[in-house]
Amino acid sequence: MNFEFHNPTKLIFGAGTLSRLGPVTREYGQKALIVTGGGSVKRSGAFDRAVASLTDAGVAHAECTDVEPNPRITSVVRGARIAREAGCEVIIALGGGSTMDAAKVMAAAVLYAGDPWDMIGHGQEHWHIPTQALPIITVPTLAATGSEMNCGAVISNDATKVKSFVQAECLYPKVALVDPELTLTVPKDQTAYGVCDLITHVTEGYFNGVDGTPIQDRFAEGVIINAIEWGRRAVADGRDLDARAQVQWASIVALNGWVQAGVGMVPPVHMIEHALSAHHDIPHGAGLAVVNPAWMRFAARARPERFAQFAQRIFGLSPDGKDALTLGLAGIAAYEGFLREIGCPTRLSELGIGDALFEAYAKDAVLVVHDDQGRLLGRPPMTQDDIVAVLRAAL
Amino acid sequence: MNFEFHNPTKLIFGAGTLSRLGPVTREYGQKALIVTGGGSVKRSGAFDRAVASLTDAGVAHAECTDVEPNPRITSVVRGARIAREAGCEVIIALGGGSTMDAAKVMAAAVLYAGDPWDMIGHGQEHWHIPTQALPIITVPTLAATGSEMNCGAVISNDATKVKSFVQAECLYPKVALVDPELTLTVPKDQTAYGVCDLITHVTEGYFNGVDGTPIQDRFAEGVIINAIEWGRRAVADGRDLDARAQVQWASIVALNGWVQAGVGMVPPVHMIEHALSAHHDIPHGAGLAVVNPAWMRFAARARPERFAQFAQRIFGLSPDGKDALTLGLAGIAAYEGFLREIGCPTRLSELGIGDALFEAYAKDAVLVVHDDQGRLLGRPPMTQDDIVAVLRAAL
Repeated sequence: MNFEFHNPTKLIFGAGTLSRLGPVTREYGQKALIVTGGGSVKRSGAFDRAVASLTDAGVAHAECTDVEPNPRITSVVRGARIAREAGCEVIIALGGGSTMDAAKVMAAAVLYAGDPWDMIGHGQEHWHIPTQALPIITVPTLAATGSEMNCGAVISNDATKVKSFVQAECLYPKVALVDPELTLTVPKDQTAYGVCDLITHVTEGYFNGVDGTPIQDRFAEGVIINAIEWGRRAVADGRDLDARAQVQWASIVALNGWVQAGVGMVPPVHMIEHALSAHHDIPHGAGLAVVNPAWMRFAARARPERFAQFAQRIFGLSPDGKDALTLGLAGIAAYEGFLREIGCPTRLSELGIGDALFEAYAKDAVLVVHDDQGRLLGRPPMTQDDIVAVLRAAL
Repeated sequence: MNFEFHNPTKLIFGAGTLSRLGPVTREYGQKALIVTGGGSVKRSGAFDRAVASLTDAGVAHAECTDVEPNPRITSVVRGARIAREAGCEVIIALGGGSTMDAAKVMAAAVLYAGDPWDMIGHGQEHWHIPTQALPIITVPTLAATGSEMNCGAVISNDATKVKSFVQAECLYPKVALVDPELTLTVPKDQTAYGVCDLITHVTEGYFNGVDGTPIQDRFAEGVIINAIEWGRRAVADGRDLDARAQVQWASIVALNGWVQAGVGMVPPVHMIEHALSAHHDIPHGAGLAVVNPAWMRFAARARPERFAQFAQRIFGLSPDGKDALTLGLAGIAAYEGFLREIGCPTRLSELGIGDALFEAYAKDAVLVVHDDQGRLLGRPPMTQDDIVAVLRAAL
């Protein structure tokens, strides 16, 4: 249980806090690049309110619009160029996980003379982990990735069909300005995918961490229990601000390091999903909803007691008369049932994905996070054959 | 649920990490003031190992020894003078909560020309909250206060018999270097008081925070459940490193803000205990063990459902056939039973305290943290008469 923890991001959380964007940004610079996604922030009025707050505080701005879902390195290059040419001193991400991740890497790319793809781990000989970046301010409009308060980013390369990540100290946002009102207009399906994404962040550590982290277990279980309860409500009624706020808070603590401290998390389910969404451009949370239950059934055989604990503590299932594996599988079925209830797909066929490229996904999934035998890290480690078997079970 | 959270302290946790003190300190300066308490770190060898690590890293040092339990402002003044005269650039606290708290305020006092007591809230017209301090590195030798990873300090004034606190952004340690091996020699009674202290940090928020913080509830319950389980083991066998590590980790997360984020914690039990230990110089954790159960029985009448939740989730008590208050009181009795089991006092008489000064304690307790009617903040707010009644119940 030797570990380090450091998360210097300042969090400002609450309904209406978008109005503080200007003064907050002004502490870091006089000109900001505002990074946005497909335009929902313009339709909702959030963009105009953000600009008004900036203008009031004397902060000028440039824009990088149209960051796509599964954000591409080409968008990073484009945004960094705009920031450099406009002389921006601070980067504001106003959008979902894709927008925030792209904005983070833009902030580092502005100060890096090489190819920004060097910063994303993809099996290259020298992985250029950035050590400096412009100050980043995140303003999430979706509760899902937790990117607003961590130092990670996931970027895709459409040319090579690789989707991978970077984590670097300099990518911690200076401020995460989190206003749950901005999520009130998120459609039902995206809300559900976000809930699935945040729960999967927690399950990765819960099922793939080291032994002997009982406090972290309770934290993890607390996040999942509440994500299920409040996620159900947020999907049922998108205008329920309480539910939106609880889900958003859950998404932040799911991946700001509090739950994972000392856990030694590795994320096999994410690695498999990234391989899928690199090829098919599916919503990340939808991909996770398909892969995670299939992966859980695979992993439960190696560690049934852990899945039995999940079944008991999350779903209150009784252990009476069941062996650990039976109980664990019942918990997985309950979780899958929840995912279906909120409208997530749980089969590859629902995503329009067949078995034609299974070998390719398996190869991509082990590209970065593998042991010295080339197996995907996790409990248990997975060979490429194991990955194919899990995908086959999810067809 | 609008709140801010920011904790920039870097945590380095694990057995053996004391050996990293030198390189860690070197990042902040070439000369350190080492602040210590009554001498246990010299007897245990921890001091010599700390100095060896500093020397190897090229860091010179001065010393401020003999910080007393319930640390006094006179010690702060003395330490700040040593640091100033020796030209120290960084302050290292090697000791328990008292040592760490005194060291934090010394770090601010070095850079403050006025009387350091100005920085401690004691009803003065202008409370000088410090805005700058020398870099602070904490190396706790006791699992209790969580001071190693927060921005608070509690200081006593022996002349005026006031014990009070300061919280300031500049008092966050740069690094908390937490080596559970250093706690292996803590005696049984101090171990138990530390467990009580950390649990009380959590219960203050749990019982006195705002409504509608279900994730924080689960975090709080997780810390308490584990503090009870592992605290029992640490008291039973002080050489159990696993138990020591879990208790130390619990003490950190109990007061580094993770459990309290968005909760709006106020600490009435601490305010009452501070009034007692200012007059009687009792161990803080022992005072809390006496005050908290008596306070809980008072507060349960105002908010029985909350105490019923505590009884069910912490002690697994069945609600069957009980009203909320009855269930809640049973949970309080179970908690008091745990405190007695690990060797904590639960009556004032065990501390040698009678009722002679009850009115004075009550007056001191409301000195800083009160509403506009002069009542001690909490759920419910307490008049001085309420405080006297709680103390009387604890005789």
